[in-house]
Amino acid sequence: MPAHFGPRPFSPKSSGWYRDVTSMTVAFVTEREALAAYLPAPYRVADIPVVTITYACNRQVDWLAGHGYNLVAVNAAAVFEGEDETLEGNFTLIMWEDLADPILTGREMQGIPKVYADITEHSVIDGHWHTSAGHFGHKFLDVNITNLREPTPEEVVGNARARKGKDNPMAWRYMPAVGGFGQALNDATTYPSENVIDEAWVGEGSAAWQHLTWEQNPTQFHIVNALADLPVLSWLPATVARGSTNLVVLDRLPRRIS
Amino acid sequence: MPAHFGPRPFSPKSSGWYRDVTSMTVAFVTEREALAAYLPAPYRVADIPVVTITYACNRQVDWLAGHGYNLVAVNAAAVFEGEDETLEGNFTLIMWEDLADPILTGREMQGIPKVYADITEHSVIDGHWHTSAGHFGHKFLDVNITNLREPTPEEVVGNARARKGKDNPMAWRYMPAVGGFGQALNDATTYPSENVIDEAWVGEGSAAWQHLTWEQNPTQFHIVNALADLPVLSWLPATVARGSTNLVVLDRLPRRIS
Amino acid sequence: MPAHFGPRPFSPKSSGWYRDVTSMTVAFVTEREALAAYLPAPYRVADIPVVTITYACNRQVDWLAGHGYNLVAVNAAAVFEGEDETLEGNFTLIMWEDLADPILTGREMQGIPKVYADITEHSVIDGHWHTSAGHFGHKFLDVNITNLREPTPEEVVGNARARKGKDNPMAWRYMPAVGGFGQALNDATTYPSENVIDEAWVGEGSAAWQHLTWEQNPTQFHIVNALADLPVLSWLPATVARGSTNLVVLDRLPRRIS
Amino acid sequence: MPAHFGPRPFSPKSSGWYRDVTSMTVAFVTEREALAAYLPAPYRVADIPVVTITYACNRQVDWLAGHGYNLVAVNAAAVFEGEDETLEGNFTLIMWEDLADPILTGREMQGIPKVYADITEHSVIDGHWHTSAGHFGHKFLDVNITNLREPTPEEVVGNARARKGKDNPMAWRYMPAVGGFGQALNDATTYPSENVIDEAWVGEGSAAWQHLTWEQNPTQFHIVNALADLPVLSWLPATVARGSTNLVVLDRLPRRIS
Repeated sequence: MPAHFGPRPFSPKSSGWYRDVTSMTVAFVTEREALAAYLPAPYRVADIPVVTITYACNRQVDWLAGHGYNLVAVNAAAVFEGEDETLEGNFTLIMWEDLADPILTGREMQGIPKVYADITEHSVIDGHWHTSAGHFGHKFLDVNITNLREPTPEEVVGNARARKGKDNPMAWRYMPAVGGFGQALNDATTYPSENVIDEAWVGEGSAAWQHLTWEQNPTQFHIVNALADLPVLSWLPATVARGSTNLVVLDRLPRRIS
Repeated sequence: MPAHFGPRPFSPKSSGWYRDVTSMTVAFVTEREALAAYLPAPYRVADIPVVTITYACNRQVDWLAGHGYNLVAVNAAAVFEGEDETLEGNFTLIMWEDLADPILTGREMQGIPKVYADITEHSVIDGHWHTSAGHFGHKFLDVNITNLREPTPEEVVGNARARKGKDNPMAWRYMPAVGGFGQALNDATTYPSENVIDEAWVGEGSAAWQHLTWEQNPTQFHIVNALADLPVLSWLPATVARGSTNLVVLDRLPRRIS
Repeated sequence: MPAHFGPRPFSPKSSGWYRDVTSMTVAFVTEREALAAYLPAPYRVADIPVVTITYACNRQVDWLAGHGYNLVAVNAAAVFEGEDETLEGNFTLIMWEDLADPILTGREMQGIPKVYADITEHSVIDGHWHTSAGHFGHKFLDVNITNLREPTPEEVVGNARARKGKDNPMAWRYMPAVGGFGQALNDATTYPSENVIDEAWVGEGSAAWQHLTWEQNPTQFHIVNALADLPVLSWLPATVARGSTNLVVLDRLPRRIS
Repeated sequence: MPAHFGPRPFSPKSSGWYRDVTSMTVAFVTEREALAAYLPAPYRVADIPVVTITYACNRQVDWLAGHGYNLVAVNAAAVFEGEDETLEGNFTLIMWEDLADPILTGREMQGIPKVYADITEHSVIDGHWHTSAGHFGHKFLDVNITNLREPTPEEVVGNARARKGKDNPMAWRYMPAVGGFGQALNDATTYPSENVIDEAWVGEGSAAWQHLTWEQNPTQFHIVNALADLPVLSWLPATVARGSTNLVVLDRLPRRIS
């Protein structure tokens, strides 16, 4: 959209590849009931109620002609129990990005609940990694990772085994009717990707939210406050990784699930 | 969207009012056939094929808690000839904005084809008004207005008469199916507003487009180039205005037209 | 600087005028000793130890070809008691601006201690004015003004009388020797301006600082923390004003004082 | 400056190291007389009149607590022939940076003629590297490098030999007197650095300038136009490199030269 100028012309240089991705991931176990409040049926919380916060510094993005952007995604470990299929993975509670172009594409084509934030490119000082996100001048999130080390072979194997068959990114595509009342679209979706890890480290990480008022962030304060209120029972190991990501996996394209 | 955190909480301080709006408007007559190529049926070009480029510096926007943003809209004088109704007004070819929040709301609730650009706040030097728009570091539009004077009473009356019943803003709401292939939504819409003009001046204005490559602006270059190629037969009088705008007119809410 | 391209060419359109200035000013009485710690001799704290925080939204700035910028200045009521002259006015503790061009000019030509911050353009909602400032993603200042009303004639007269002969803006121009050790320049300066007020309102206002760490703002945290630690004995009436400012007053150009 | 809050507190985490630097360098031979016009005596053009344009994406900068910024430097191959010493190297004609903090430090402590620009982080698409710079919404520079390959051993050795004793970065520190008339500081300086190259590639590169008017960039247009008018006799091989840089080399600190 606008659609009347015809489809976006395809360049032979374009693809689904994000060729230079640096990510910071922190995760915590929360209370099942608290998290369940934000999963629309037929999604349910996974066996372990884990919330994952991932910052990604995306560079050399082919479909953006080699430009890039930053994102912060908040995902809930979830199971989709539909009429036709059951899928284990992560339900995207929200994804902040600092560039409108992928926000529009993600919302409209994959149903990912993307919204805008100013996301500070990660800083690294004395082995400490940090990023933050804010909007309208009011910071709402800090993410910190420190004490990084290389993962043990056991951790690498264990991580791969744990993710096997359970790394489906999922979302809820909802569009209102014209004028904002009633619904026009209501789909559960999955948007698989292919991730190549070149380097990865394990460390200790955490995130800190700041509660906001309507005056400070009138379009997102209720979401920030909901996430800030999720109880943190324990922080899980954090990771920093460098690699590349492909969002167009030919045999696993984004699709509706039911 | 995200919808699973519930609807955006309403503040009693919110409303449809944009309480401080400064606008620059330039317009030109183009060739009917050239313009017609971008109007989806059942829209057709109006009797005089006019393209209007409007920059607005929106401040004190109630639904944004008093924050603001800039926009550049390109509209075509058009008639909607539907099965049920005929509407004269302006078909929005594209609307660039420099804040993601109204882009999302406008696309999804009113069907306005909004996309992002960096829009320079207007400068005023020696009676010359200027703004520009670009993305990914590449400017694509300059708008200039000069030789401003107060409108004559005849111009005020004539302008009001000319607009009577013909100032319907209209758009095409199109959303693809999940994955991007096929359509999920396909609506013609109108999104009326109420405009209060506190001050207005008439002058000479024009716009200059820069052709772009895919490498320079991979998501919008084809639109910029299409607009840059519209023949300019003659520039019409330009206007600068200050006032306020209400996007929520109770008896004329945004709606589908057919 | 760079000086080897010759002086900046003068345009006949340039001048010292800032033709569209909107300002918010809050002020408080602090403890004399606490404030005195930041005034270099021969400056001393004025009879009433007042700190003033002024936000200005500068637009239509002639020397910037009609562009603009925002600033937040923190001033101390002070007296310069030099060998040759005594001057009453405001000593600029710090001035944040969101555009580098006036920062460079102000530091190097007038000795004003300007540094950079992201300064949110003021928002106005339901009669409440707000702005904030931050750097590297970390907000350090919120300024709020509310309950605005027109000033009484007595207030207008009293304010003019109180300022008479006491509105000299003053600063300390200090430049280190090459390499940063030792001094190369060490001047007390005054930089008069001419202010035209078109509209003004009086209300209640305050400012809130956030303490920062070196990691959050390595170039300014000590300044922010020093200002945050100044005791607030009482807030004075706040003002919002619209008007214009001339920085080049021919018979009162910026100069060294001694 | 401000100096009255005391010196900037030193963190043990701070240092002169820029730990993650990605650079693009293009260079051309120009006409000696044209270039000589911009070198203040006692600088003179080197035996081969080369102009080098370097973009650097600086990340993990220790003195900025691990944050970063981008720069575009334009250097002239030059010889300083002072009364006391003769130094071969590069005279910095101008250095644009997109963060005010290093602009202030560089101007005031090393005399580097730094000014602000919006500098697009480099994009990489299909082996083509690009960056651009602009200000006030008007792009003035594009830099392109393509056809990259690893350097031959001969090139590595030859390059090191050619630079031996000739890689002194030099500048002219000029500050006006208060008020802008007359001079307060006038020094020739050198600011050595230590560069560690982790990876480097050689390719074909060029830069394209856009002439600007005072209205488009009132503080820099004359500099951009002067650089745009330098004749390009031939483009030299371009390089892309990744590595780290140390600006505080203990036995070669920034200093005045005479």
